[in-house]
Amino acid sequence: MKIARFSHDGAINFGILDETDLVVLAADPMFGGFETTGERVPLADAVLLAPVIPRSKVVCVGKNYADHVKEMGGNEPPAEPLLFLKPNTSVIGPGDRIVLPALSDQIEHEGELAVVIGSVAKNVRAEDADSVIFGYTIANDVTARDLQKKDGQWTRAKGFDTFCPLGPVIDTEFSFDGASIETRVNGDVRQQAPLSDMIHSVADIIAYASAVFTLLPGDVILTGTPAGVGPIVSGDTVEVAVSGLGILRNTAA
Amino acid sequence: MKIARFSHDGAINFGILDETDLVVLAADPMFGGFETTGERVPLADAVLLAPVIPRSKVVCVGKNYADHVKEMGGNEPPAEPLLFLKPNTSVIGPGDRIVLPALSDQIEHEGELAVVIGSVAKNVRAEDADSVIFGYTIANDVTARDLQKKDGQWTRAKGFDTFCPLGPVIDTEFSFDGASIETRVNGDVRQQAPLSDMIHSVADIIAYASAVFTLLPGDVILTGTPAGVGPIVSGDTVEVAVSGLGILRNTAA
Repeated sequence: MKIARFSHDGAINFGILDETDLVVLAADPMFGGFETTGERVPLADAVLLAPVIPRSKVVCVGKNYADHVKEMGGNEPPAEPLLFLKPNTSVIGPGDRIVLPALSDQIEHEGELAVVIGSVAKNVRAEDADSVIFGYTIANDVTARDLQKKDGQWTRAKGFDTFCPLGPVIDTEFSFDGASIETRVNGDVRQQAPLSDMIHSVADIIAYASAVFTLLPGDVILTGTPAGVGPIVSGDTVEVAVSGLGILRNTAA
Repeated sequence: MKIARFSHDGAINFGILDETDLVVLAADPMFGGFETTGERVPLADAVLLAPVIPRSKVVCVGKNYADHVKEMGGNEPPAEPLLFLKPNTSVIGPGDRIVLPALSDQIEHEGELAVVIGSVAKNVRAEDADSVIFGYTIANDVTARDLQKKDGQWTRAKGFDTFCPLGPVIDTEFSFDGASIETRVNGDVRQQAPLSDMIHSVADIIAYASAVFTLLPGDVILTGTPAGVGPIVSGDTVEVAVSGLGILRNTAA
């Protein structure tokens, strides 16, 4: 099931994507289940929003694809997931504008698979990780590369408002089988990798992160970016596509 | 005015501290103003809670006291505030237990002055910073020092559940004049400094941080720790005291 959050006629609702329609849900399905109102809205008439607004955390994993570790000048990928946080104020939806801050001269895209947590989760074993996942979506871990190198801590470089596009939908039945991720800038392919290239699996990341902090429903985990990161400048359109999840498209300005 | 959040007879409320009583407020004063219900609860009968639960961010500043920079092996303090985030799931209240995770062998206290943001704030000028401050409280930026050094990014080392004690109250009229901060472990003074030793002022930190991310009401800013950080082990009681703000006391286990 593909879940969208959308605005239409001045109202914001959740809906189930059914080919070209959105079947309106009575409540946020993460908390209220999948009861529908009976109403249908044509997808073409709706504005899709970020499918989730994290109440607590966007947890990110750095250096989770070996080729990306190499392109960043590193040698061995870390033996454990390298965690950092993006604030929920950085989240925008599909189609929203990535605002390029004047404080940076080098802003880059990082296309990533994102996991949406569906239940309170602490000390989850890897083999139980599926039980706390609500679904999967796509993210762009936008990064001010110059500030990332200058600051050491990545909070500022990755925390600017609009630096966490999420969407277009949450798929509650996403399959990793043969799935790949691709990032395009103005149509040119910049990043392309099978999701099987991830060093630390989603299950291992959830086990690792939930040993540190309690994950809450609506928390989002960004699972790292493959090689090919590069600059985005004003006017560029960035698309991140994951098999089965659609395309997350944002323009920078 | 000193604002507490407290539980009493199974209900959680906000109140104004009036010597030995809490004057019950009708709502969270950050959003609902200072209307009282007429009820008074003796302070001795109430359990104080974290005076705020950040909806979005706990923003922290590293290396903001020169003596602490030196004790950590650094040379010059950073020219700009070094920002990092603690998740809101790390927040506990006065009297709550700091849970020492088995993943670390070196957990340390960092007593800090904390600023509670009261309004939506983006690109705030330093001279306007006071207008977005709701008040001040005390924080302990509990840190797994071994993991901080191992990981490079500080998210895991500083993000464990219970690693952000806040309280006991928010003072909406706090004065820096002659104020100092002191951290004691089992009564022994470990950290002691005048707040005037801060390298980057609260106003400068707010200007700097709000140029990156929108600050939301309830966001908390931890302003850095002075020299004297050191270990806490099971059974230790840590007190952080700031002139005029009282004592934030927590026991580790």
